[in-house]
Amino acid sequence: MRTIAIGQLGLGNVGAGTVALLRDNRAAIESRLHAKVVVRKILVRDRERTRDVTVNPSLLTTRADDILGDPEIDVVVELIGGIEPARTYILQALTAGKHVVTANKALLAEHGAEIFALAAARGLSVYFEGSVAGGIPIIRSLREGLASDRIEAITGIVNGTSNYILDAMTRTGATYADALKDAQAAGFAEADPTLDVGGGDAAHKLALLALVSFGVRVDPAEIVTEGITGISPLDIETAAELGYVVKSLAIARRTEAGLCLRVHPTLVPRTHVLAGVEGSYNACLVQSRALGRSLYYGRGAGMLPTGVAVVSDIIEVCRNIAAGTSSPPVPDAGIVEGTPLPLDNLVSENYLCLHVPNQPGMLGKCAACLGKHGVSIKRMIQNAPLGRHPVPMVIFTEPVEEHKIAAAIREMTTFEILGGMPIGRIRVLDLGDTP
Amino acid sequence: MRTIAIGQLGLGNVGAGTVALLRDNRAAIESRLHAKVVVRKILVRDRERTRDVTVNPSLLTTRADDILGDPEIDVVVELIGGIEPARTYILQALTAGKHVVTANKALLAEHGAEIFALAAARGLSVYFEGSVAGGIPIIRSLREGLASDRIEAITGIVNGTSNYILDAMTRTGATYADALKDAQAAGFAEADPTLDVGGGDAAHKLALLALVSFGVRVDPAEIVTEGITGISPLDIETAAELGYVVKSLAIARRTEAGLCLRVHPTLVPRTHVLAGVEGSYNACLVQSRALGRSLYYGRGAGMLPTGVAVVSDIIEVCRNIAAGTSSPPVPDAGIVEGTPLPLDNLVSENYLCLHVPNQPGMLGKCAACLGKHGVSIKRMIQNAPLGRHPVPMVIFTEPVEEHKIAAAIREMTTFEILGGMPIGRIRVLDLGDTP
Repeated sequence: MRTIAIGQLGLGNVGAGTVALLRDNRAAIESRLHAKVVVRKILVRDRERTRDVTVNPSLLTTRADDILGDPEIDVVVELIGGIEPARTYILQALTAGKHVVTANKALLAEHGAEIFALAAARGLSVYFEGSVAGGIPIIRSLREGLASDRIEAITGIVNGTSNYILDAMTRTGATYADALKDAQAAGFAEADPTLDVGGGDAAHKLALLALVSFGVRVDPAEIVTEGITGISPLDIETAAELGYVVKSLAIARRTEAGLCLRVHPTLVPRTHVLAGVEGSYNACLVQSRALGRSLYYGRGAGMLPTGVAVVSDIIEVCRNIAAGTSSPPVPDAGIVEGTPLPLDNLVSENYLCLHVPNQPGMLGKCAACLGKHGVSIKRMIQNAPLGRHPVPMVIFTEPVEEHKIAAAIREMTTFEILGGMPIGRIRVLDLGDTP
Repeated sequence: MRTIAIGQLGLGNVGAGTVALLRDNRAAIESRLHAKVVVRKILVRDRERTRDVTVNPSLLTTRADDILGDPEIDVVVELIGGIEPARTYILQALTAGKHVVTANKALLAEHGAEIFALAAARGLSVYFEGSVAGGIPIIRSLREGLASDRIEAITGIVNGTSNYILDAMTRTGATYADALKDAQAAGFAEADPTLDVGGGDAAHKLALLALVSFGVRVDPAEIVTEGITGISPLDIETAAELGYVVKSLAIARRTEAGLCLRVHPTLVPRTHVLAGVEGSYNACLVQSRALGRSLYYGRGAGMLPTGVAVVSDIIEVCRNIAAGTSSPPVPDAGIVEGTPLPLDNLVSENYLCLHVPNQPGMLGKCAACLGKHGVSIKRMIQNAPLGRHPVPMVIFTEPVEEHKIAAAIREMTTFEILGGMPIGRIRVLDLGDTP
């Protein structure tokens, strides 16, 4: 029986899960592949550290070259994360003729073009199921399950931290700051949560989903990205009163004018399938021409969920090796570079929340400003509580182009009477347009 | 570039979708496989019939042997459905060294052992993504995405007709008979809906899911199967008042005692992820050891959704052919024959609905009978409307073994005072036990 040798870079959380799953499923994997899969070396920073998995110490090395320079190693599994040295290691592995499995969304989103081009030139595979939505086989489903379909749009809850915080705020009425603290204590948010709550992590994943679905590579920095840090308990409560839940969505859509990509908090009707995605779960709702709507839901992170995804990729790569083929993870027709559309002409309904002095004429002033910019008001809610000052005024707009509502908000922000209080604004999920 | 030749059996709904998708995606498929995929012959009953897809008439044949006996044909795609002649054709195709793609759940559920054994002996593939939940890539996800995971349970809404009818009854208050008529008019139920509404179709699919997930082949006739024909508007209304939705679920679970398989109407809490599966949609909720809960949701039937699944299988088989390998669709470790556990010791909460004369002592008589059999009452609801006779009495039980509640129902059914009115009974989804 042929032996396929793996070199693993990193033995943190996901690395330990991967080693454990490969070991626990050795017999099933061998019988599927008619080949043995052996972890030959694991790169670690510190050989003495206590770990979540028992590993033969002789497998551990602190020198990357023990893996990248070992001609016996067929597959490099990169689980150290971050841009460097992960990028250099992956390029070295491909140059040395090794296939690559990675769960590194940031690296692929930013340097995917370079990595995929080198892999294609060498006839090697780069697989990355673990990089988006953890253990949910979304990449595989898009790439293979829907191979003969045309993906029109993806609407995803792809950042577990943001969903956990918004879900906690919805259930308990907590402020963002308190919900974040709880999420950190529960292990669902990092000490520095910026990348998660700011939407950057979701933008990375959205760029990868667009790559797999549309064959278009975009720079994640060009994706319009709004985080959840400005969402207030009042926003959540008002949304709930009107039958909505606030979710942070990553949305990719083909339009006639080009690719529309965005990450932002969104009001989702409570009956919508994405409204029920609770806690740190992830979900991707796919709209495709033949299949219509399909949804993939599960744990988006964690040692074992992401490990399951990494091992499914290892099995796939080893299957290619055993068969002497390579199967590219992204559309073969070639990846084109793309720029997301500016949002100027995106049409949405909007939720606006202004804090206004409790005095006559305020509504008229705001309504006039909205009207001047072509924004129609669908609904206005102002319940002035006794003694509260300033008073929150909530406005729902009719569907309107982004540039109009943005101009109106810009002008209202200059109203002296608002005293510099920020104007809250959340787009409403468009059910006609979004899957 | 190598050409792989397909022979297709059947050109109905799904057959037309398959031909159309293969044609519309020819370039993408070629670039993925580095091979051409050509439909060489299509078996039809009537060459002259008008069809949903334009096909070169020279491709059509009424003789199966033009496909099964053609040495140039590599893959046979069976889309005629039913047991015979589909079974004979598939066995002939495998004997002739051809790989098989099929969407025929009834055939695989009943004769899968014979078909998979022959395929394994010949080193050929049999793929069947289209046979369960239409275009949702559930078989692929279970087989490949979760390859290193251990599936513990699957809870599925796998019959679109039943879900469509129950959803309509829930939304409109219609009776079963009226909702069925509407479903037939809308094309979501067959003229003879027995296999769908009786649960037989779901049992076939459940047997296939168990085969893929657990490597156990069971006779679908041995799966305890209850249909939806006895569900009344009163059941649905009472369930709704208490926060439940009635769904027809197919449930497979590993237990220490063996495999528990069942298809029956179930009360699902309104906040549960399966409660939101509307209309004719399908969903499979999977519980696995490493990944935890994951859900796969989409259109369970239809020309294009099922066509997408069939074409994804064709691409997979062609990829194997191009690589000179075969990848078995079911666990290689070998399929074992299994018998589902009897449900006697299954513990569920239950909803009971009795129609009793509006006279003193009725509740006491029923409660005493339940108590005698060890069934505790959690909640009792009786709103006797003026002049209504008999009066519906709804009882929710505490969790209790199946054999106890069954014995109690058997005894109550003999009460002369119930005048032979059937006793409605729906199990409640066990959230501790079911994913």
